[in-house]
Amino acid sequence: MSTAGQIIRCRAAVAWEAGKPLVIEQVEVAPPQAMEVRVKILFTSLCHTDVYFWEAKGQTPLFPRIFGHEAGGVVESVGEGVTDLKPGDHVLPVFTGECKECRHCKSEESNMCDLLRINTDRGVMLNDGKARFSIGGRPIYHFVGTSTFSEYTVVHVGCLAKINPAAPLDKVCVLSCGISTGLGATLNVAKPTKGSSVAVFGLGAVGLAAAEGARIAGASRIIGVDLNAKRFEEAKKFGVTEFVNPKDHSKPVQEVIAEMTGGGVDRSVECTGSINAMISAFECVHDGWGVAVLVGVPNKDDAFKTHPMNLLNERTLKGTFFGNYKPRTDLPSVVEKYMNKELELEKFITHSVPFSEINKAFEYMLQGDGLRCIIHMDA
Amino acid sequence: MSTAGQIIRCRAAVAWEAGKPLVIEQVEVAPPQAMEVRVKILFTSLCHTDVYFWEAKGQTPLFPRIFGHEAGGVVESVGEGVTDLKPGDHVLPVFTGECKECRHCKSEESNMCDLLRINTDRGVMLNDGKARFSIGGRPIYHFVGTSTFSEYTVVHVGCLAKINPAAPLDKVCVLSCGISTGLGATLNVAKPTKGSSVAVFGLGAVGLAAAEGARIAGASRIIGVDLNAKRFEEAKKFGVTEFVNPKDHSKPVQEVIAEMTGGGVDRSVECTGSINAMISAFECVHDGWGVAVLVGVPNKDDAFKTHPMNLLNERTLKGTFFGNYKPRTDLPSVVEKYMNKELELEKFITHSVPFSEINKAFEYMLQGDGLRCIIHMDA
Repeated sequence: MSTAGQIIRCRAAVAWEAGKPLVIEQVEVAPPQAMEVRVKILFTSLCHTDVYFWEAKGQTPLFPRIFGHEAGGVVESVGEGVTDLKPGDHVLPVFTGECKECRHCKSEESNMCDLLRINTDRGVMLNDGKARFSIGGRPIYHFVGTSTFSEYTVVHVGCLAKINPAAPLDKVCVLSCGISTGLGATLNVAKPTKGSSVAVFGLGAVGLAAAEGARIAGASRIIGVDLNAKRFEEAKKFGVTEFVNPKDHSKPVQEVIAEMTGGGVDRSVECTGSINAMISAFECVHDGWGVAVLVGVPNKDDAFKTHPMNLLNERTLKGTFFGNYKPRTDLPSVVEKYMNKELELEKFITHSVPFSEINKAFEYMLQGDGLRCIIHMDA
Repeated sequence: MSTAGQIIRCRAAVAWEAGKPLVIEQVEVAPPQAMEVRVKILFTSLCHTDVYFWEAKGQTPLFPRIFGHEAGGVVESVGEGVTDLKPGDHVLPVFTGECKECRHCKSEESNMCDLLRINTDRGVMLNDGKARFSIGGRPIYHFVGTSTFSEYTVVHVGCLAKINPAAPLDKVCVLSCGISTGLGATLNVAKPTKGSSVAVFGLGAVGLAAAEGARIAGASRIIGVDLNAKRFEEAKKFGVTEFVNPKDHSKPVQEVIAEMTGGGVDRSVECTGSINAMISAFECVHDGWGVAVLVGVPNKDDAFKTHPMNLLNERTLKGTFFGNYKPRTDLPSVVEKYMNKELELEKFITHSVPFSEINKAFEYMLQGDGLRCIIHMDA
């Protein structure tokens, strides 16, 4: 029996308050409205951004809310005007969208859609300014337009990448956010050439995805930089060839890297969000041709500061958002990179839990244990 | 009668002391040593850098010295090992070189030759650490390896671009430094596309050459920014379509430009060296695709400062040196751009003086009068 057009009652993990364990509740999920799609989520994973907004230490708290933005699912039904997707299509929801109409979507260089660019403060759908989730009539807020910690969710069609139905969703779900962000930062923005040297700052999931990008690009030296030496062993699997722990050196890490490489690396990718790491990542690239790419999100009051001669000596400094991937246009080809074994995703997946134990995934992340924990929605 | 291998006695404009008028003297010019070339200078022009080091306010003074680095001439004789040039070849001396052997010369992206990169402190030739100029046995120092304020000079072969002998040296001599620097900043580094918008900060010769590059690239809006409104009328000849004087606005100029352009220009080129202009030039480019290029040389203690979100929103910040042109490889093709009338040089040439009146050229520049003054060596 089709559920299209009807309210669906299903399980969702609701965050009632900042920092308190999620509670599995029965929620009502309204049908999709114009340009919206209702998706059955099969697998979701936990990303730092979920934890950051769940802790809600810096921002205006918005609760009760359903978090989750890395996921894979199947289209259940589509709203008015949706022609790109139909029930049964396999999709990855993405926290930022692609309307295909605005100046950014029409630019070859940008993925920062004017209509559907990430908005962490908005807890409702664009169409009517309301939530599609409720419990006994009380609305439950959305998170970045995805809210994948629910068996069913409603997402704007512009925030769904239609992917190869043969791709295993329990693996490719991690491409919704972090892994694509790091991978794209290297492959689309830093663009190291074969045989070149790349420094990666921060060896969490995003940084290791940046290293994976460098490995795929054929870099011959991949230098991992992290304050936590425990991460070095695991990083070897991702092609990292050398390690620098800034704590082991009295001089700035950019000087250490310059000495290791005869003047600096060809490319660097910063994945920590620490302002000092950003400055080091820029200053450690070689003059004449070095390119530094910033990925990590800084604090509100940070200032990036460097001597302008570092720029005039022909260094390039760029930032990226979601690895410069356009969600709908580009993600399907990233999934294909996994399908043809160019990109390895298994090594990013260190844990899995049933949906009923979703709070364990939060514990793993808070303890810095592992990279990605896959949450199985059917268990 | 050949002068090869012999000392040449000729006129040179000698700076005996910082800031004091140059004195036309009879100097002795020694023959070129290994990898050196002696050049008969026919035309030279004056650039701000000459004036800056002549004033010697910030640097260790090095006097007596022969300044000059924008020029055109003809090879008189060549030293041992020089195979690329022969007597009679037409050349432009360049303040920075291209050895064709180092990592920078072998990189497609860099022009910052390890051997012959600009050195403003060295007043002697690389081969023996001595000057080729003398007066009655007293050595007279070189300037950036060119010293073109002399009827004859000795230059390392790596600092000479061999050009089309049909090119008029009294015009193309300005391509030795400033004009190529601005032009290349736009054409080689900012790379605006047809129909795009470009902001140029600073409407001196370098900035106007950057605007000329934007005009050649087919930019539809070229916004000139300068604190001196007198420059706006002249700038129209260089394709500048709109003007912003930061003094006319209470809000920062980057905000003014963002309002004029629906969020920012596609490209900007900074040609003043003022740290505040650098920051404005970066922050005035559009998120998603904007590229800012720094050309102007900053003060020693300046710090470039911006919020890292300006970068993460997919802006690019780059610096350039000599417009990223490799002197020997690329300058001949810039001369051809003039020969085929793509590039207009006449409008940069606002004055001319005989060599005997070279101090007038300094006066014009110190008064901010005009763009380039051509000094005729035979008069």
